[in-house]
Amino acid sequence: MTQPDFPNPVDHPVIDAIRARWSPYRYAARTVEDDKLIRCLEAARWAASSFNDQPWSWIVAKREDTAAFATALGCLVEANQAWAQDAGVLILTCIRTDFAKTGKPNRVALHDLGIAACQLSLQAATLGLQVHQMAGVDLDAVRRRYELPTGVEPQTAIAIGYANEEPPRGDFQIELEQRQNGPRTRKSLSDQVFTGKFGSTAGFVA
Amino acid sequence: MTQPDFPNPVDHPVIDAIRARWSPYRYAARTVEDDKLIRCLEAARWAASSFNDQPWSWIVAKREDTAAFATALGCLVEANQAWAQDAGVLILTCIRTDFAKTGKPNRVALHDLGIAACQLSLQAATLGLQVHQMAGVDLDAVRRRYELPTGVEPQTAIAIGYANEEPPRGDFQIELEQRQNGPRTRKSLSDQVFTGKFGSTAGFVA
Repeated sequence: MTQPDFPNPVDHPVIDAIRARWSPYRYAARTVEDDKLIRCLEAARWAASSFNDQPWSWIVAKREDTAAFATALGCLVEANQAWAQDAGVLILTCIRTDFAKTGKPNRVALHDLGIAACQLSLQAATLGLQVHQMAGVDLDAVRRRYELPTGVEPQTAIAIGYANEEPPRGDFQIELEQRQNGPRTRKSLSDQVFTGKFGSTAGFVA
Repeated sequence: MTQPDFPNPVDHPVIDAIRARWSPYRYAARTVEDDKLIRCLEAARWAASSFNDQPWSWIVAKREDTAAFATALGCLVEANQAWAQDAGVLILTCIRTDFAKTGKPNRVALHDLGIAACQLSLQAATLGLQVHQMAGVDLDAVRRRYELPTGVEPQTAIAIGYANEEPPRGDFQIELEQRQNGPRTRKSLSDQVFTGKFGSTAGFVA
């Protein structure tokens, strides 16, 4: 089943990229064009970060580079390998844990990685691609296989690709299809926007 | 000096919201319309998160609520108070450190807060507002003043408002103007996009 262009049922108008972004479990097993991949990484590059430290880096494996892709895939937990093997690109993300300029610990490096990954995802959605981010990564495997230096820590993985719009074949594909096409839900603003005291809903969203 | 609509000198085309977003140090001391604020929070609401846990929450203080705004401002480190006092809205961000469904630790809660804050920022930039995020927060003050429950941790602050486009008056305003209008720079993709091994630049960005 083809997803609509704007699958997220928003309650208030937001930018198209946010309305369009979702996390597929079924990718079409095809490559991603270099110019699109570069635009996604460029979007990430312009993320805000504490002291403009830009603590993130990306270890990228394109599916056409079969050995590199297999290595990256092997760093995911098995449940993620099962569907991410069809992605066009896999990225293993890392952060520097200390500020480059001062050497002091960067308490928000992981936060800032999230900002950059978000910009990457929204750019992808705008180009007809979709991103699925994963926390289920074998961090030790990443450290070892990519020889991460001291002060650099692996964090997440990112699958980029085209959603598979062919009808699912076989039990596993059907299960993935159901998983990705379940209701797209979020908590209400009244459950997450507070004022005065934690848990006290702000009047303007009540 | 008025900022151009798209101040970020990108090397490759990216979505307008990303080209337009920057972090002001000089805000116009005016309120933000509720409907715009709600759209920013709605954008954040649709962020991706691990297991769709949505670990973030927002403690919001609008400048027209002077007591609430002063309380929020008082939770920032002094260097941030000096400029953030002119913002239209201050938000203190929190995360739940464990997954709501399982009670297990959420390793990427801070990362997912970053995703949500990013979507908020890009929506703001699209509405003519700008966001400036801060790590410089008195976390203990937030815990105490807003009575955060166990399992909820304060993280960052977010200023939202209209950039001040009037000429700066006085030394401090001139200093802030210089700070916010300095060169908008980022590391090159070749310094952050690797393949095969950490530090080994990927061919397609070399």
